[in-house]
Amino acid sequence: MIVVIQCKDQVGLVAGITGVLAKEQLNIVSLREHVDKIENRFFIRVHLEVETDSQALESKLKQVLPEDAVIKVNPLPEKKVVVLVTKEYHCLGDILIRHYFKTLGAQVQCVIGNHDTLENICQRFDIPFYLVSHEQKDRDVFESQVSSLIDKYTPDYIVLAKFMRILSPGFVAKYTGRLINIHHSFLPAFVGASPYRQAFERGVKLIGATAHFVTNELDEGPIIAQQIIPVTHSHTAGDMMKAGKEIETAVLAKALHLVFEDRVFVYKNKTVVFE
Amino acid sequence: MIVVIQCKDQVGLVAGITGVLAKEQLNIVSLREHVDKIENRFFIRVHLEVETDSQALESKLKQVLPEDAVIKVNPLPEKKVVVLVTKEYHCLGDILIRHYFKTLGAQVQCVIGNHDTLENICQRFDIPFYLVSHEQKDRDVFESQVSSLIDKYTPDYIVLAKFMRILSPGFVAKYTGRLINIHHSFLPAFVGASPYRQAFERGVKLIGATAHFVTNELDEGPIIAQQIIPVTHSHTAGDMMKAGKEIETAVLAKALHLVFEDRVFVYKNKTVVFE
Amino acid sequence: MIVVIQCKDQVGLVAGITGVLAKEQLNIVSLREHVDKIENRFFIRVHLEVETDSQALESKLKQVLPEDAVIKVNPLPEKKVVVLVTKEYHCLGDILIRHYFKTLGAQVQCVIGNHDTLENICQRFDIPFYLVSHEQKDRDVFESQVSSLIDKYTPDYIVLAKFMRILSPGFVAKYTGRLINIHHSFLPAFVGASPYRQAFERGVKLIGATAHFVTNELDEGPIIAQQIIPVTHSHTAGDMMKAGKEIETAVLAKALHLVFEDRVFVYKNKTVVFE
Amino acid sequence: MIVVIQCKDQVGLVAGITGVLAKEQLNIVSLREHVDKIENRFFIRVHLEVETDSQALESKLKQVLPEDAVIKVNPLPEKKVVVLVTKEYHCLGDILIRHYFKTLGAQVQCVIGNHDTLENICQRFDIPFYLVSHEQKDRDVFESQVSSLIDKYTPDYIVLAKFMRILSPGFVAKYTGRLINIHHSFLPAFVGASPYRQAFERGVKLIGATAHFVTNELDEGPIIAQQIIPVTHSHTAGDMMKAGKEIETAVLAKALHLVFEDRVFVYKNKTVVFE
Repeated sequence: MIVVIQCKDQVGLVAGITGVLAKEQLNIVSLREHVDKIENRFFIRVHLEVETDSQALESKLKQVLPEDAVIKVNPLPEKKVVVLVTKEYHCLGDILIRHYFKTLGAQVQCVIGNHDTLENICQRFDIPFYLVSHEQKDRDVFESQVSSLIDKYTPDYIVLAKFMRILSPGFVAKYTGRLINIHHSFLPAFVGASPYRQAFERGVKLIGATAHFVTNELDEGPIIAQQIIPVTHSHTAGDMMKAGKEIETAVLAKALHLVFEDRVFVYKNKTVVFE
Repeated sequence: MIVVIQCKDQVGLVAGITGVLAKEQLNIVSLREHVDKIENRFFIRVHLEVETDSQALESKLKQVLPEDAVIKVNPLPEKKVVVLVTKEYHCLGDILIRHYFKTLGAQVQCVIGNHDTLENICQRFDIPFYLVSHEQKDRDVFESQVSSLIDKYTPDYIVLAKFMRILSPGFVAKYTGRLINIHHSFLPAFVGASPYRQAFERGVKLIGATAHFVTNELDEGPIIAQQIIPVTHSHTAGDMMKAGKEIETAVLAKALHLVFEDRVFVYKNKTVVFE
Repeated sequence: MIVVIQCKDQVGLVAGITGVLAKEQLNIVSLREHVDKIENRFFIRVHLEVETDSQALESKLKQVLPEDAVIKVNPLPEKKVVVLVTKEYHCLGDILIRHYFKTLGAQVQCVIGNHDTLENICQRFDIPFYLVSHEQKDRDVFESQVSSLIDKYTPDYIVLAKFMRILSPGFVAKYTGRLINIHHSFLPAFVGASPYRQAFERGVKLIGATAHFVTNELDEGPIIAQQIIPVTHSHTAGDMMKAGKEIETAVLAKALHLVFEDRVFVYKNKTVVFE
Repeated sequence: MIVVIQCKDQVGLVAGITGVLAKEQLNIVSLREHVDKIENRFFIRVHLEVETDSQALESKLKQVLPEDAVIKVNPLPEKKVVVLVTKEYHCLGDILIRHYFKTLGAQVQCVIGNHDTLENICQRFDIPFYLVSHEQKDRDVFESQVSSLIDKYTPDYIVLAKFMRILSPGFVAKYTGRLINIHHSFLPAFVGASPYRQAFERGVKLIGATAHFVTNELDEGPIIAQQIIPVTHSHTAGDMMKAGKEIETAVLAKALHLVFEDRVFVYKNKTVVFE
């Protein structure tokens, strides 16, 4: 059983929290704690050996915590997710395989694509696929169609698995803290379009990928995980893109795993990740 | 200020410990905790924001801990070390440079070599160097000469920085938990002599290095840190050895850093490392 | 267009080969060459800009090469493969996704399992699946059933994608140089069964995976690719197994990619890999 | 013996070059070749088994190569270098240790610092140290003083080992292709000052270092080598800087090794590196 708490920092928080747990005879398997001294912010994740009444425990914890505390006791072990895609298959394929074999740690409720390229693979896994084309319509209309579909499923997270449309501030605000994106670059290098073309022209020796929560700055937002892969002079821009897809897949998988196990806290533009 | 504790596990340990800290108004910057469920063993490292009376705090902590608890409150920030070498310079060179610029986190009291190859470099850094040849004498005699020198300095740790003599059970027992070795292989592959020759003949694509505490099993003992480096068909055994030296240097530096900051706990044949 | 050649070494081989290519006005995009001085063995891979008549080129090359030369001019770009599995899905899932999206570089002709666990996923991708149980029959019988199925498809390679049966010398000999295995360990550490259990008990800080050609030594055979992933004291043996699956998938994918692009040469117990 | 050649690409270059070598009975140990199709540029590095008359070989090679060819036959195995520093010791310390033990592959002729912080360490290794303060003088004056010192030594390369002054276009132009810098960031992320502060504020999960030739764009210039190290939420900007120094040292060492072994070609804003 998992307990995660985020609140402003003050003396005695760990003592208060673990005092409650000890009183309930709840043995701690592992405990990770971090204080952001600059923001004066406290983060804790406790893994307990046994299960107990979540609601009762939460109200007891509330009594030892500041009012602003965000407490989750035994958060849903299987998150619900909607996946947004365009044409590239590598991230979605990985998600579908893990989902099919029940190791994703989440339930894929549906996939929404602005192209139909990935419809067939979804059908093969019995996952509903919705085509919402962005063509010949305003972004507002496109986004409200996507949004209606999402809202039908009330997902915990929306995963942008190589979804190649830039989302409006309104859309992002509506799903704040729930939108996870994979960016095809080692941010903050090569922000924006064609990062592999940029990387090739710059002659870099490493390329990277970044999984992050989406905010309204282009390719900004709290970073969850990053990874790199070496490249050489013999890589064309196309080769870099191919190599990049391998780490895009890996880094998104890792980020989702961390988020779905409630190991990621967000505060302002940063994350605290208890791996 | 750092507090590290190791003891048998029981319910309420974190609450007890952090309760004491809270009562003393000692704010926690970071806390790492681990329970080994198989060994029923509890490990904690707490980083406190401010300093306080170490002895007073230690006796208060004792009252909430089991009798077998090993407690260190504010362990010496600068460990004392004696370094044992043979002929290879790379690990010693790195240690001397860090020591000279005061970033080793330890005081190098002296270097003991069974060859005089590295005497000159020690002199350049004003570090006492003792030559204790192993030639034409029994291992017992050799070891007791080395041991006498070590004991003059009462070091916290003895670092085997490419010391190529196998130590007797008696010697190892005398310094148990204080002997740190760098092994030129990714243990447990290629135990014993000439690991690079073995690696070359096996045609591996990665070679590694392992820093570990020394016990009486050849190349066994609790592992502190490991690292690897890729190699290809174009590496001769000699090239592998050269590449290996780079990671031997890096992995020993990392292990020493972790040990000197009291981030490493040893229990039976394993370590708990709070990076 | 690709040319790969392996033969005994002698002066003038590159001149001879590239002389033929120049005479045909075939521009070289990239050339990789290696001489194993110990085995006196020559390996070359040339990537040509344009296509030409393969047979004509091969006979011209033969005239400048020693008699023992193995020459492949424009080897089949799409290899044919049969995949052998047991119950674990991660490697097969990755292969099927890449195959479905035509980025595997090979055609998966069928999957043979000694359990039916992975039948359904194969059906979803329209790949023939054959169940050949090993239970209640001699290994000879089991292997001859598997072998008959394989031979129906005349594959270039047989991929053991977590196939958990030890194959007899006869079986291995029959498919020598064509059997590719993924081993769940950083060979040569932890040879044999339960490597993650062994790794956990040893307290290692890195775990690995190895893709290799199969020979008749248990977990020996020329290594194609290896990779590692860091682990800590907080990993149980089960966690190590989970983490290991990620790199097993990645390292098998990489090895297959290298083999299918004719970048891997085998000689005796080693490989030459031109990445 | 090494032969390196760079010229415009055309059909038959490898045949021409290796034809000359074969005629001279010079056996090739390894050969690396690359063609930049976009720039139509040819690069080759050949490692020969035995020595021969360099000048004779060079003139024979000239006859089979285009006029623009830059040929080096048996380039000086020990390059001469001048090192420029400011206050940080880590890169210089590593260079001095390798130099002292004759594994740098170059001769350190002198060190020039704009502070005297690193004078003592140079003296300990008997390396001439020159203090050229930048204070209370124009950049022109400062640079001409540095330049005069450099020119006394006619070094092959000038290594900026954490030299914290921005050099003028004139200075850079004078030493074009000979200035090697270590940049404390994973370029092109965090160009300019305080990259660790920038990285901390962005909340990245990896930090990097880049070794590159210096051109007149700030932190631009052909990249030789890059490396990264993972960081977490628990790293302060100061911790990131400390971690960064480890990879700065490693990546500069690697870049120098590659350059000193004539494995690096520069063309326009990119390098070709035959590792």
